[in-house]
Amino acid sequence: MSAAPAQSRPGGRSARVRAAVHRAVEELAAADAAEPLTIPVIAARAGVHPTTVYRRWGSVAQLLADVATSRFSGDVVVPDTGTLAGDLERWMGDVATDLADPDVLALMRATIGSGPEGGCACAVDRHDQLRAMIERERARGGAAPDVERAVDMLLGPLYYRAVFSTQPASPQWARGLVTALLKDM
Amino acid sequence: MSAAPAQSRPGGRSARVRAAVHRAVEELAAADAAEPLTIPVIAARAGVHPTTVYRRWGSVAQLLADVATSRFSGDVVVPDTGTLAGDLERWMGDVATDLADPDVLALMRATIGSGPEGGCACAVDRHDQLRAMIERERARGGAAPDVERAVDMLLGPLYYRAVFSTQPASPQWARGLVTALLKDM
Repeated sequence: MSAAPAQSRPGGRSARVRAAVHRAVEELAAADAAEPLTIPVIAARAGVHPTTVYRRWGSVAQLLADVATSRFSGDVVVPDTGTLAGDLERWMGDVATDLADPDVLALMRATIGSGPEGGCACAVDRHDQLRAMIERERARGGAAPDVERAVDMLLGPLYYRAVFSTQPASPQWARGLVTALLKDM
Repeated sequence: MSAAPAQSRPGGRSARVRAAVHRAVEELAAADAAEPLTIPVIAARAGVHPTTVYRRWGSVAQLLADVATSRFSGDVVVPDTGTLAGDLERWMGDVATDLADPDVLALMRATIGSGPEGGCACAVDRHDQLRAMIERERARGGAAPDVERAVDMLLGPLYYRAVFSTQPASPQWARGLVTALLKDM
């Protein structure tokens, strides 16, 4: 969505509404996975009129995409340890720690399907970060796996454990995935 | 849930109610991911009284777990090709084909968190099948990876692509994961 400067002064009413609505979505997602996330329910929780939400986001799906993009951007930073192995290990530990927070997991589940062309808006920033680390390694002349292969072998097992299985996804185990990926090149 | 013989004669009213309610959940999940799955909505769609649903399943979460367990059991069979590589390749192709059905994917998304201790009831049968193939290989004296490692390296990337990313999870690509897993032993 492009910014509409007249409506979105930082700290103005527009920013307060956005913050309140985002917080309402996060709280409702964390409270009960079976709670239906509808615009009237979200608006009531945020203390704003449903029309305000409809006008600004259009649909629950677009609102969820906005919340996921905002929440899952910048929460984990790209480390710069000097080596690809070091960068990936620290980053995977951080992503695993993030996913171990039940509120983060609840929001992720709620926003599945919210990404561009399906997928999850929660994953877009993760892919960008992985690509940044891999391209930096190539730029300094090192060997690095394909981004797609790294997504498959790192984010695949990590998100699968967090969402589908009951196996714990510990930061230590997550770092072990990096070793397996880089050994295999 | 243990069977209550007096209430569950096959083909009787109880079986018809169960089939209608299961179908209602699958249709609602497929129709709109943002549609709130509540017991009144499901009951109305199934043409039964909400009390019937509450009495039988207790909660939406338990109903979703029942639907997922039923839908994701027996839909993919364990192949017996004579080799672990052959079994896993055929099975992964079948699971990938199953996940490529948008209705299956919708039901899977709706039932995330429905498994015992969290996780997804949709994955329980997959783990059992993987374990069966691996144990059969060991029983005939062959080498086989740990079940956990096979889950990480096969189901992890496959479900990640189906749910979180926009990369296609083709049967051919899924079979390639088997090659990578077995090469690495």
